[in-house]
Amino acid sequence: MQIAAPPEWIAADWGTSRLRVWAMGPGGVVLDRRGSDDGMGAVSPGGFESALLALVGDWLGERTPVIACGMVGARQGWVEAPYAPCPGPPLSTSLTRAPTTDPRLSVHIIPGMAQAAPADVMRGEETQVAGLLAREPDFAGALCLPGTHTKWVRVAQGAVTGFTSCMTGEVFSLLSTQSILRHSLGSAPVDHTAFAQALEEGGDPLPRLFGIRAADLLHGTDPDAARAHLSAMLIGSEVAALAARGDTVALLGDPALTALYTLALERVGCMVRGLDGETLTLAGLTAAHALLESTR
Amino acid sequence: MQIAAPPEWIAADWGTSRLRVWAMGPGGVVLDRRGSDDGMGAVSPGGFESALLALVGDWLGERTPVIACGMVGARQGWVEAPYAPCPGPPLSTSLTRAPTTDPRLSVHIIPGMAQAAPADVMRGEETQVAGLLAREPDFAGALCLPGTHTKWVRVAQGAVTGFTSCMTGEVFSLLSTQSILRHSLGSAPVDHTAFAQALEEGGDPLPRLFGIRAADLLHGTDPDAARAHLSAMLIGSEVAALAARGDTVALLGDPALTALYTLALERVGCMVRGLDGETLTLAGLTAAHALLESTR
Repeated sequence: MQIAAPPEWIAADWGTSRLRVWAMGPGGVVLDRRGSDDGMGAVSPGGFESALLALVGDWLGERTPVIACGMVGARQGWVEAPYAPCPGPPLSTSLTRAPTTDPRLSVHIIPGMAQAAPADVMRGEETQVAGLLAREPDFAGALCLPGTHTKWVRVAQGAVTGFTSCMTGEVFSLLSTQSILRHSLGSAPVDHTAFAQALEEGGDPLPRLFGIRAADLLHGTDPDAARAHLSAMLIGSEVAALAARGDTVALLGDPALTALYTLALERVGCMVRGLDGETLTLAGLTAAHALLESTR
Repeated sequence: MQIAAPPEWIAADWGTSRLRVWAMGPGGVVLDRRGSDDGMGAVSPGGFESALLALVGDWLGERTPVIACGMVGARQGWVEAPYAPCPGPPLSTSLTRAPTTDPRLSVHIIPGMAQAAPADVMRGEETQVAGLLAREPDFAGALCLPGTHTKWVRVAQGAVTGFTSCMTGEVFSLLSTQSILRHSLGSAPVDHTAFAQALEEGGDPLPRLFGIRAADLLHGTDPDAARAHLSAMLIGSEVAALAARGDTVALLGDPALTALYTLALERVGCMVRGLDGETLTLAGLTAAHALLESTR
């Protein structure tokens, strides 16, 4: 599809595995959107400008600002965008300019956030938090952003007051594809009934993991139920550690995953408020673009 | 080395990755010992007799009994040796005869143990427990056998009353070689001082794992200390879940690993009694051989 006129600016969510872009028109209208598998992890050093041009080249006018968030600003990304400190606002004015050769491009990367102790970092999620605060400046409470490394973010008075990354997604992936448990696990999407039932067990996952294998050897467990069991052990333990009864938790991310987190959060007495991740990413990138314009 | 006369019998500890054999003489004297990498996992179906003959062929007399324990008795091993039930004695008389073509061989496999609920299985460790009971018939208490799947075994009145397998070793291996943490971990043996220091943190490992990566990114952590940190998170959590203050825990296995478990166990107020794994394996195989002889 060809858009009628060059966008005012381009929004980019450039994570480890995906690059997603939006052509933004006047008044925040989305003119077009595209995506590619040129995530930060797939692009070699020096290849970022080409990867971006491959996706948005035909959108560009004389000079089009691009506002990007995510792992593209990591040390091994296009250019390192130094972290903003936590506690602090999720969006500062100090966007990092990426080096470009095409004169039509002007690329600005949103810094991630770093917490000194306990040591933690994020890149990309701060933009979603900024998007939430752009829409609800008085938001206060907890956000949960499930993924490979799920982020739990606490927000008050327009700032991120603390956050925790939890490797639940990566651990689930390793255990289900690389460990001895892989022999006992199906590949179907996690069944909600089996997941909810397995949540009832509670307790540390480490001493219970092998039970999945043993139950299969001894009783011939259904492989899809076993997969739900593993998922419930890990997400249940994460939620028990990081959510507090009575909390309202704003939840955003992949719908298949947030459905499981909702079950786990409600079980420990939390209220869940579902938010749309893409909407907040775009709202955060829009807020960053407005900040950039205001400082020109 | 050639031994003077055929052994009375041959003891075999045949695990997933290693096959170890002992030529046993009169009165329990070890005449010779050998090992190979023909573990159960490396031998194809139908190849077990050849693998054994390759190692002990020159030891054999007219007819030499071989008593074997371990994963060789698993479904994917030489022949499935059905599990003995837990609770129950670690050694029953129902050894399983493996099919052989060489008339000099008479191979008997010790069954593993199965616990119905919580589902759990072991193969090999029951022989070490039997060895301990052969030497100390009144032993009562907890055993810890660290490894890829660490076993925690409770023993009373000559029987195994319950046990738990913990995938700590496999999880450590996956996280340190396959996860994002691998970029931050050294390869040196775990340093005891750093390990003991990291034990002090306590708490669930899942929400703390990513901190190892973040601390490296932000503060440039020493990779060997990071490795000790990961080990302490996992072993510390395992021990906190499975050992009780005041327990005396009999500990046997790889010395590098039992040293770490000793630190973790002592920290939670357990008394540790170190036992030699090979001695107990051999004592258990000897007890099984005596049982076999007594039933002829």
